[in-house]
Amino acid sequence: MSNYWSPLAGSLEPYVPGEQPKDKSYIKLNTNENPYPPSPKAIEAITSAANSDLRLYPDPTCDILVKEAAHYYGLTEKQVFVGNGSDEVLAFAFAAFFDPAKPVLFPDITYSFYKVYAKMFGLQPKLIPVDEDFAIPLEQFSGNEEHTGIILPNPNAPTAKLLPLSDLASILERNPDRVVIIDEAYIDFGGKSAVELIPRHPNLLVIQTLSKSRSLAGLRVGMAFGSEELIEGLDRIKNSFNSYTLDRLALYGAVASLQDEAYFRETTDKVIQTRERVAGEVAGLGFKLTDSKANFLFISHPAIAAKELFLRLREKGILVRYFASPRIDQYLRVSIGTDEEMDAFLTALKESVGELS
Amino acid sequence: MSNYWSPLAGSLEPYVPGEQPKDKSYIKLNTNENPYPPSPKAIEAITSAANSDLRLYPDPTCDILVKEAAHYYGLTEKQVFVGNGSDEVLAFAFAAFFDPAKPVLFPDITYSFYKVYAKMFGLQPKLIPVDEDFAIPLEQFSGNEEHTGIILPNPNAPTAKLLPLSDLASILERNPDRVVIIDEAYIDFGGKSAVELIPRHPNLLVIQTLSKSRSLAGLRVGMAFGSEELIEGLDRIKNSFNSYTLDRLALYGAVASLQDEAYFRETTDKVIQTRERVAGEVAGLGFKLTDSKANFLFISHPAIAAKELFLRLREKGILVRYFASPRIDQYLRVSIGTDEEMDAFLTALKESVGELS
Repeated sequence: MSNYWSPLAGSLEPYVPGEQPKDKSYIKLNTNENPYPPSPKAIEAITSAANSDLRLYPDPTCDILVKEAAHYYGLTEKQVFVGNGSDEVLAFAFAAFFDPAKPVLFPDITYSFYKVYAKMFGLQPKLIPVDEDFAIPLEQFSGNEEHTGIILPNPNAPTAKLLPLSDLASILERNPDRVVIIDEAYIDFGGKSAVELIPRHPNLLVIQTLSKSRSLAGLRVGMAFGSEELIEGLDRIKNSFNSYTLDRLALYGAVASLQDEAYFRETTDKVIQTRERVAGEVAGLGFKLTDSKANFLFISHPAIAAKELFLRLREKGILVRYFASPRIDQYLRVSIGTDEEMDAFLTALKESVGELS
Repeated sequence: MSNYWSPLAGSLEPYVPGEQPKDKSYIKLNTNENPYPPSPKAIEAITSAANSDLRLYPDPTCDILVKEAAHYYGLTEKQVFVGNGSDEVLAFAFAAFFDPAKPVLFPDITYSFYKVYAKMFGLQPKLIPVDEDFAIPLEQFSGNEEHTGIILPNPNAPTAKLLPLSDLASILERNPDRVVIIDEAYIDFGGKSAVELIPRHPNLLVIQTLSKSRSLAGLRVGMAFGSEELIEGLDRIKNSFNSYTLDRLALYGAVASLQDEAYFRETTDKVIQTRERVAGEVAGLGFKLTDSKANFLFISHPAIAAKELFLRLREKGILVRYFASPRIDQYLRVSIGTDEEMDAFLTALKESVGELS
């Protein structure tokens, strides 16, 4: 703790991202990256944009990308916001819509950055416990209690469980005066986007990313969809923080990615097929696992400590994610790689189970 | 004002960046972009990085860029922070080092985003009036008054005036318990960086950008240099906001740019030479102007309203920056373009003066 830090800087508990190992080469199943490369059209667009125009500022309003995303989802341009990864968009949303005077609600088991954002913007997080099967208790989001808003990831992370749109619509209806954020980082791996609920729910903000289903984690592009007044709220925060959050390369790359629907379908379908196959095999090894609609599995062995398994897999060159957190410290989160990578994972998992039993 | 906005979102007065015109083609001298393209080595590095690795997250600690920047300035890696443009780095610095309980000091005429950051982080800006020649009154930063810190751009914008390092050292010495931020966005056009003061002043944070002197406004890369404890403070804020602020392309492009010293010298020298020539010619037309050490001129005509001149130049296809703000609304800020662009500017300026006299 330095005397030069502000009270805010001193009070924070910063997020720790998944390991990006530099020591040796692993099969990397720990940060939910897509095993397939981005659309070749995105790469081509980036390469074309790498020219002398980089001397110029990018468009601060990101018009080409906003337009493309609006077209993709049948929204108006005023219903779309884009930012430097969905993490940035989430940060802006916490600042734009939640009041420090009342609690903001989210599940106790969820993306661990939500708690960090809450600290950053002086908010009061109120954690709603999921049940033993990690189901989100809808009655706790009924709007009867005093609160400033809700954030729910769908599918949830790291549990991979999906809520049907009817459940989300019910939450939105019961909280008409407060913003409900649905974080859809993993929606394209088997879920249905809540974007279609936007016309009927001015309190709904849907946040997505190009990092997972579009294989562009390295480009940093996130998007938000909602009523014009919510998008204007995000713009106000963004323009009080950084006028130019997306660089020229990201703008062109993201547009080309959104335009390549065939490639997007092909690669997300492959991830889903691999997930279903591997889920079956992992279950066959005696693991308990949730019904994943994301690009990862959430698995637990009844007899072997998850941390031991994590370390053993690491020794074998397979990196998965272990969370030393209450309620989920018996689980591992395993990103879906290529079929070859997952075969290597399954072999290592089988061996590890044998060695540790 | 929407009922869905937080009290913060409702209270903000967002920054308005310089116009990026889409209606027709102008000679663009309004946002201090560099007229020369980025180093060909930077473009090459970006093109090489536009590959399938974009599916992977970038290094959250930006090691390759931190290392290169540290090497460039003879610092350790723990004395360097990088971010998504110096606007983002400035935002983090306001959050990290300034306490809402006390005023933060900066000149009344300066980069207008400082006031916006102050609102964003609930700070109390205390504006120190510059004198009639736009000189910063050093005695006002003597540390005698209660305050939480200081931010000074050097050279200042939009006045283009430079403070010598001895003045900055004196301010640092008089405020040993508070952070002094020196915003060096324009330092490479004739000034001397305060980075050399870092070893003696743990309270000094120097912020730079690759947007101006490195011709990379479109790539969004900013840097900060200071004592380890200040860099750690910035890291705490950044990791409570967004783990991956710099994309893979920006990291590689920025490293290559920092490595190409010859190109950097050549292009900044050209800008300086053009500035000196144009300053002389503008003075010859009867304008008053400050002694610019930046890549722009700050000019005022004794008899013609700056706004009239701005509009007339715009009609002639020359875009410069006019600020409708007290004390500087008789001035225009004119970015330095190529010699050809500045010749066109001078012709249009001569004509406009003739037409408006």
